[in-house]
Amino acid sequence: MKTLILFLFMGCGFLFGESSTTGDDALFVVNNTWMLVSAFLVFIMHLGFATLESGLTQAKNTVNILFKNVSIVAIGILTYAICGFNIMYPGTFNGFLGFSGFGLSIPSGAAGLIDYAGGNYTYFTDFIFQAMFAATAATIVSGAVAERIKLSSFLIFSAIYVALIYPIAGSWTWGAGWLGDKNFHDFAGSTLVHSVGGWAALVGASILGPRLGKYSKSGAIKPILGHNMPLATIGVFLLWFGWYGFNGGSVLSADPGVVSLVFVTTTLSAAAGVIGAMITSWYISKKPDLSMILNGSLAGLVGITAGADCISPTNSVIVGFLSGIIVVLAVIQLDKLKIDDPVGAISVHLFCGVWGTLAVGIFSSDYSFTTQLLGVSSYGAFCFISSVVLFKAIDLLFGLRVTEEEEIIGLDIGEHEMESYAGFQIFSAE
Amino acid sequence: MKTLILFLFMGCGFLFGESSTTGDDALFVVNNTWMLVSAFLVFIMHLGFATLESGLTQAKNTVNILFKNVSIVAIGILTYAICGFNIMYPGTFNGFLGFSGFGLSIPSGAAGLIDYAGGNYTYFTDFIFQAMFAATAATIVSGAVAERIKLSSFLIFSAIYVALIYPIAGSWTWGAGWLGDKNFHDFAGSTLVHSVGGWAALVGASILGPRLGKYSKSGAIKPILGHNMPLATIGVFLLWFGWYGFNGGSVLSADPGVVSLVFVTTTLSAAAGVIGAMITSWYISKKPDLSMILNGSLAGLVGITAGADCISPTNSVIVGFLSGIIVVLAVIQLDKLKIDDPVGAISVHLFCGVWGTLAVGIFSSDYSFTTQLLGVSSYGAFCFISSVVLFKAIDLLFGLRVTEEEEIIGLDIGEHEMESYAGFQIFSAE
Amino acid sequence: MKTLILFLFMGCGFLFGESSTTGDDALFVVNNTWMLVSAFLVFIMHLGFATLESGLTQAKNTVNILFKNVSIVAIGILTYAICGFNIMYPGTFNGFLGFSGFGLSIPSGAAGLIDYAGGNYTYFTDFIFQAMFAATAATIVSGAVAERIKLSSFLIFSAIYVALIYPIAGSWTWGAGWLGDKNFHDFAGSTLVHSVGGWAALVGASILGPRLGKYSKSGAIKPILGHNMPLATIGVFLLWFGWYGFNGGSVLSADPGVVSLVFVTTTLSAAAGVIGAMITSWYISKKPDLSMILNGSLAGLVGITAGADCISPTNSVIVGFLSGIIVVLAVIQLDKLKIDDPVGAISVHLFCGVWGTLAVGIFSSDYSFTTQLLGVSSYGAFCFISSVVLFKAIDLLFGLRVTEEEEIIGLDIGEHEMESYAGFQIFSAE
Repeated sequence: MKTLILFLFMGCGFLFGESSTTGDDALFVVNNTWMLVSAFLVFIMHLGFATLESGLTQAKNTVNILFKNVSIVAIGILTYAICGFNIMYPGTFNGFLGFSGFGLSIPSGAAGLIDYAGGNYTYFTDFIFQAMFAATAATIVSGAVAERIKLSSFLIFSAIYVALIYPIAGSWTWGAGWLGDKNFHDFAGSTLVHSVGGWAALVGASILGPRLGKYSKSGAIKPILGHNMPLATIGVFLLWFGWYGFNGGSVLSADPGVVSLVFVTTTLSAAAGVIGAMITSWYISKKPDLSMILNGSLAGLVGITAGADCISPTNSVIVGFLSGIIVVLAVIQLDKLKIDDPVGAISVHLFCGVWGTLAVGIFSSDYSFTTQLLGVSSYGAFCFISSVVLFKAIDLLFGLRVTEEEEIIGLDIGEHEMESYAGFQIFSAE
Repeated sequence: MKTLILFLFMGCGFLFGESSTTGDDALFVVNNTWMLVSAFLVFIMHLGFATLESGLTQAKNTVNILFKNVSIVAIGILTYAICGFNIMYPGTFNGFLGFSGFGLSIPSGAAGLIDYAGGNYTYFTDFIFQAMFAATAATIVSGAVAERIKLSSFLIFSAIYVALIYPIAGSWTWGAGWLGDKNFHDFAGSTLVHSVGGWAALVGASILGPRLGKYSKSGAIKPILGHNMPLATIGVFLLWFGWYGFNGGSVLSADPGVVSLVFVTTTLSAAAGVIGAMITSWYISKKPDLSMILNGSLAGLVGITAGADCISPTNSVIVGFLSGIIVVLAVIQLDKLKIDDPVGAISVHLFCGVWGTLAVGIFSSDYSFTTQLLGVSSYGAFCFISSVVLFKAIDLLFGLRVTEEEEIIGLDIGEHEMESYAGFQIFSAE
Repeated sequence: MKTLILFLFMGCGFLFGESSTTGDDALFVVNNTWMLVSAFLVFIMHLGFATLESGLTQAKNTVNILFKNVSIVAIGILTYAICGFNIMYPGTFNGFLGFSGFGLSIPSGAAGLIDYAGGNYTYFTDFIFQAMFAATAATIVSGAVAERIKLSSFLIFSAIYVALIYPIAGSWTWGAGWLGDKNFHDFAGSTLVHSVGGWAALVGASILGPRLGKYSKSGAIKPILGHNMPLATIGVFLLWFGWYGFNGGSVLSADPGVVSLVFVTTTLSAAAGVIGAMITSWYISKKPDLSMILNGSLAGLVGITAGADCISPTNSVIVGFLSGIIVVLAVIQLDKLKIDDPVGAISVHLFCGVWGTLAVGIFSSDYSFTTQLLGVSSYGAFCFISSVVLFKAIDLLFGLRVTEEEEIIGLDIGEHEMESYAGFQIFSAE
């Protein structure tokens, strides 16, 4: 390690020398710092997911959801270090599959750590920013399959999805693969992150089937209420907060013009998503529905993620507003199809992810709608098939769903022998 | 949009060229980055308000408070994009009223986006930082009128207050208006943000009258307890956290000397506010009161906001300590006057906002106490009158207060047909 | 103050002049900005401690824990301004004890504010970053002595520990004292912060004795469950989040190579800590224990803190994984010794702090294991003895432990006459 550290200081020697820091050197430090700031912002999104998902589900399954969310972060980061990073950014490959080895290894040459990305950031910065992204795709699934999936089976699914499916899919566009070659544009991952997670969420929720009692034979839909709305609200605000790193960091530098544009489009779309969902749900259900406006803001955020760098502020309001409408209609539609998604993850991440990716082809003349559609379909096919195979295989080998008794008493007692709110008097929704 | 993006890259071409980044270019990128960091810090203050206000009120009104806080952020940002920004920074005007058009429009000329604020940040950065501020003024009102105001009426009030009153008031000082000309100093908004919100809070709470049962005819004051102290504490810490962007970003650059001074004065004042409120309330009520020290830290933060850049560290301790005393006395005094403010918003934002603005005239020899008093009075008169007119008009047109039955069962069921803590056994305070 | 501000602008004149910002100037602004970002990240760790500790304890003691955590931040910052900073960084001294005066005073000379730390940050930045660290040591104690210590006695202990013991200990290594001379390496404080707090936690918990009913005479251990697992999870994520400033800022510049390495080692160790604790506790107790993986991530973070800058990414996984194992075994062992630590603070901060400091001697060839052991032992002896003296003295003078009745009804009612969850039906664990 001595060598590495010596090298670090030598590598930076030119930056911290007597009096001769150049403007380029200083710019490199700013760019790198911004990418690290973005990395910690994306990190806190995991707390956002954890609180949103547990807030929107029942108190008796809270420990289970928290356990999953903490574990996924750890599993996602470690598998990304072991193989994900090298699958996603494989160097030269056939455009579909590639792998440049296990573990982290600084590209050869003395300046490999530093002179890595056109002078914008170091190798380690690249890894940590991308690693923070990786786990989000699996976390999206977590919400849709909540309250009925076996813990161990979910962890196995997540580990494989994050270690293999996500980085292979990512390599096609961000890793200089075949879709990148075709000028498919997904700035920060409406498709590469959110839909990739969303497809698995759809498959998982469908294969598992709805929670007990959710849909009666007569077709009536029984609402199963979230147990803690402040917690859900904390989740949404933290996700929005972290999105400034998710989208802002995807500029891959601190370029003032682009990063500030991205901040504006991201913010306006999220705000418009709130209003779109508010109007739609208030009109349909005749009451102001908090969970709908919470999902509306996330819808706006997912919707703008593909084009935050190339859609004008005014059009970003349109993208967000439509995302807010889409998410409300999707939630209603999925319920009609008896696909039970306790937190609305499929509506937010899959539907708005698809919409946002297509919106790039509509609102930016640099990108073709047909190519965007090709990208959306290719990712859909790949992720759908992968998820079906994976979930079915795990179901066969270990079983996917907890027993009926366990679902009724709750997974906290059933899987963890622990309560989330010791001492509180809580009634079961059953 | 293609043009814009091309322009962005061209506009930044000089920054990211071959080897010729100058020190000025690099400095521009740092300054802009710091302003964007400040923007996301101010954003998270909205979660701080949401959690603080819901924590300090009753469980039966929590969904309502969360709904208001999420909506206000969206409404505040969108109205600020539509007209607020161009009212607040109108270019040339008579010093009282001005408007430079609807929507966001980059100043003309190829460098309009970049070369906008003396090379410190872009046009979009300016907008997003200021937009994050805008909604806070309305959010302050939210707490004071909580648990009894009609949702729709509150949203209408907020939209108008944020779209018109706040930016007109702001333009007088920060938009190069008549008070700016007189050297009135309000660094980050003890008056322009906090008192502007505080006056409306005072008017709203007075016009609405107290919550049912709060004050008996005999003059006894019945405490109506907050339902979730961890939530309130989360709120205070997040507000303090976000204040580093609120005050730190108000430097409008990353100037190391000034920003680091602002961090120190802000922190010391908040800490001293805790101690001031702790001693005062412990002395008066003979017990260590958590909600008082929480409000004490906010008092210290509001108090130092006007002079964080021009008050010495030692004096900032004095400003904060006195703020902590003021907030406790104000809470007690308002209760005697039967003005019912469930979360102490008037005491924190109005009383300490006034105190902090006057403190600039006391502790900094660069600014005149008389001018500071003139500013405080002018904003007071303008906001007081505007709020009375607005609240009265809305009351006349739509009604301001929910029915007695709705107040008793709670606004969550009454307005939203939803509970915040489904499954939990909760007693009403009535 | 006029002079100071004039000076600030003059001092920065060279930075913001016509067209002549040098690369060095720009680099200085980046470095300073990064240190301020790190400062606000460390600040939010206090919210992490507050929520973690209250989540893992009983609902009847929540107000008390929140009150302590808010107070400690205020007390820690103010005492650090009064004397701590000048004890910890005393300039020339005998290597063991030194003090350079009360209050904050910019080093003499016009450039004293700016040209302070080799052009990396200002005097104020240095103070605020270090002040944010200071309170953490006392906060660590808070968790271990929770649910039975008298509020006033705890506040007195904390004030003295933060004002005197912590900075004296810190000066030995970071203040150019005798251990720094010996090349003892503790990058960001596995020992100087975490063990220093951990030793006091051990002593406090031992002197106070266990909570009523925790250990029966037959040797049986009664679990006293935490009342709010989402709150505890929020705490852990916020601590992890803040750690990017804790470790990242300890680089004392924005040096891209070192800061990005620190981000990677910190993250991998935390993730590996989760997995280490998960496997160990699942193996031992046959169930997936949420509180163990939460403490596992903190264990990994504490473990890597001493060597985050000099341990390779691969080895950081080993350090974190072993930390996760250590924390689980330590929790079990302390329970066998009837040392009652409600939140696991001693296991996390003391045990993993010691391990992490020794790990530097194992995994980095730049540092000697013997010297690391010497440092660990010296800090252990000093903090252990200081804590015993302090706690015993306070016990004698004011009493340390609340009455049995108060402990049973809870400290919220007993000390504060207030409930944390007004309206909720809550059962006592007794």
